[in-house]
Amino acid sequence: MTADHVTRRERLAAEAAEERLTAVVVAPSPDLVYLTGYGPMPLERLTALVIPPDGDAVLVVPELERQLALDSPAGQTLDGHQVVGWRNGEDPYAILASILPREGRVAIGDRMWASHVLALQRTAPAISFEPASEIIGRLRAVKDPDELGALRRAARGADETFRQICSLRFLGRREEEVAEDIARLLVEHGHARADFTIVASGPNSASPHHEPSGRTILPRDVVVLDFGGELAGYFSDTTRTVVVGEAPAGFEEVYRLVQEAQDAAVKAVRPGVAAQEVDRAARRIIDGAGYGERFFHRTGHGIGLEVHEPPYIIEGSETVLTPGMTFSVEPGVYVAGRFGVRIEDIVAVTADGVERLNRSTRELQIVD
Amino acid sequence: MTADHVTRRERLAAEAAEERLTAVVVAPSPDLVYLTGYGPMPLERLTALVIPPDGDAVLVVPELERQLALDSPAGQTLDGHQVVGWRNGEDPYAILASILPREGRVAIGDRMWASHVLALQRTAPAISFEPASEIIGRLRAVKDPDELGALRRAARGADETFRQICSLRFLGRREEEVAEDIARLLVEHGHARADFTIVASGPNSASPHHEPSGRTILPRDVVVLDFGGELAGYFSDTTRTVVVGEAPAGFEEVYRLVQEAQDAAVKAVRPGVAAQEVDRAARRIIDGAGYGERFFHRTGHGIGLEVHEPPYIIEGSETVLTPGMTFSVEPGVYVAGRFGVRIEDIVAVTADGVERLNRSTRELQIVD
Repeated sequence: MTADHVTRRERLAAEAAEERLTAVVVAPSPDLVYLTGYGPMPLERLTALVIPPDGDAVLVVPELERQLALDSPAGQTLDGHQVVGWRNGEDPYAILASILPREGRVAIGDRMWASHVLALQRTAPAISFEPASEIIGRLRAVKDPDELGALRRAARGADETFRQICSLRFLGRREEEVAEDIARLLVEHGHARADFTIVASGPNSASPHHEPSGRTILPRDVVVLDFGGELAGYFSDTTRTVVVGEAPAGFEEVYRLVQEAQDAAVKAVRPGVAAQEVDRAARRIIDGAGYGERFFHRTGHGIGLEVHEPPYIIEGSETVLTPGMTFSVEPGVYVAGRFGVRIEDIVAVTADGVERLNRSTRELQIVD
Repeated sequence: MTADHVTRRERLAAEAAEERLTAVVVAPSPDLVYLTGYGPMPLERLTALVIPPDGDAVLVVPELERQLALDSPAGQTLDGHQVVGWRNGEDPYAILASILPREGRVAIGDRMWASHVLALQRTAPAISFEPASEIIGRLRAVKDPDELGALRRAARGADETFRQICSLRFLGRREEEVAEDIARLLVEHGHARADFTIVASGPNSASPHHEPSGRTILPRDVVVLDFGGELAGYFSDTTRTVVVGEAPAGFEEVYRLVQEAQDAAVKAVRPGVAAQEVDRAARRIIDGAGYGERFFHRTGHGIGLEVHEPPYIIEGSETVLTPGMTFSVEPGVYVAGRFGVRIEDIVAVTADGVERLNRSTRELQIVD
């Protein structure tokens, strides 16, 4: 992937020139991995990549991590003079500022810590800082074939996890126990690690981001399973809603509604369409059935080196879908105190339509 | 720990008043866990706690995580009206700004993402933002008895891990394999998870932040083992340097030097002393032996809910050591291309001196 890092930096530099930015600054984050292959932990000690619209990128690192940076994939595309170490006692913000133009507009990657942003602003008061979200997000949103391959493999592993979890016992076990099974299965099916394992049973299923708890799963519980993990740096993320034995009153109608909304949203995906149109396709169906107020989150989010990244599938987003974009389609309906339903697949925009990366059944599964 | 969250917020509010801040704003981070017990993942969707110098704290959260926040320990000390949800389509920064005074100085927690900081600055242009590092760091640096108990248990688990790793085989195995053993032992000895497992052998030992690699460990290799994990929210972090069979020429002299420097630095720890004096105690001995240039990192860092937090044990730090402070003492000497030595214990400042939380042997261990 070495060549890709150079190409990606060149593309970002070209976009920066187009936007009349004097530089883009990126801290340890998926952005830095995307642009250099270097992925240290974000820390209180400043590490930052500077990408000027023309000229060489420079990576500023604590001196004691300089060799680590050079030994990482970053060392294959950055020369020694492009990796600048700062020592204890030196002011890293002064060093960073000395690499930046004295004034103008500088875009900062989303995840740089406040401590670093505020110190840099104080050191370079003539610079106007703005978020690099859009400019970097645009680049990262469109995946290359290697990235699509990793996302496909991750999705298949998540699908197989769902298939196997359906044959395990739910009744009488704690949400946490089912969550542990999911984490184990994700790893068995190729993931380096599980990243999140939502098991929300009974009334908990009405809370979209419920954390698995000690609650024991009961007969007729609806259970929302929303899980994913990392495989070769890329993430899976899928949601299925199952029921333990006989469904509670009113549930099947809501299930079919969400299923229909999810299908309609996926069918709306094709190149040239605005992201908000996919959200509208799902919302139109749920609104039409009178459940609009109970679908209170966006329809989806991009996925790649992060579980949540552009494009966001939300009203107001005029981002035009482009081949290679990957995102979730996950409408949900939540009836407080009773149950919730969510169905989520990752999809990729193709040259002429859409590819579902997740392919496990979306028909209602009754579990024991 | 519920009562503690209220006390901690009261203390922070008092410090904010003292510093004439109009508010402190904290994003998902160890700071938020410390102040509320709520520990969501930092995400692109704004979550932020506002602590005014007088009056009630307010937690701003995405609407779909509001229930989650109320169900977390935060819900036990924040009333419903103190947890404000924002919905998709609403501007979360406008909501946050409406809770803040229109102008004055607002301190922001270190880990808030740049995307949130820059958006808040744009929304509240009359406010002067500054880092909350010092004001929050001062509070968190002094541990209460429960926190000390967790750090002690974590340290004992790390000590036991070192004791057992010394009886396992090094020669002929890859650094990565030894690192996996360390991770497994940390969990066996009470940790929820391993956080880092540096195994730096032969010339790699001269790189302080080396990542375990595929390098096979050879006879006469020096191996630096620096590892830690999380236990009940608190971290362990210890370093020992071992040698595989006969030591290489010049190594034992350097080992004894680092051992002596570490002892001197630990002995310098007591209430009333400035943090930099501990750094100087280690550096004086290493400088005196002519190795000053090869000890190019600070002597230590605080530890608690984070592996690195205040106080930092470094030249220039006039932070006065206070009973309850916990930090690492870890001098090192690195001979590029040949070997490195580092010895690290976590210590706690007591009423009249120092307690070593790590107690595994610091005598040179020869491994097979």
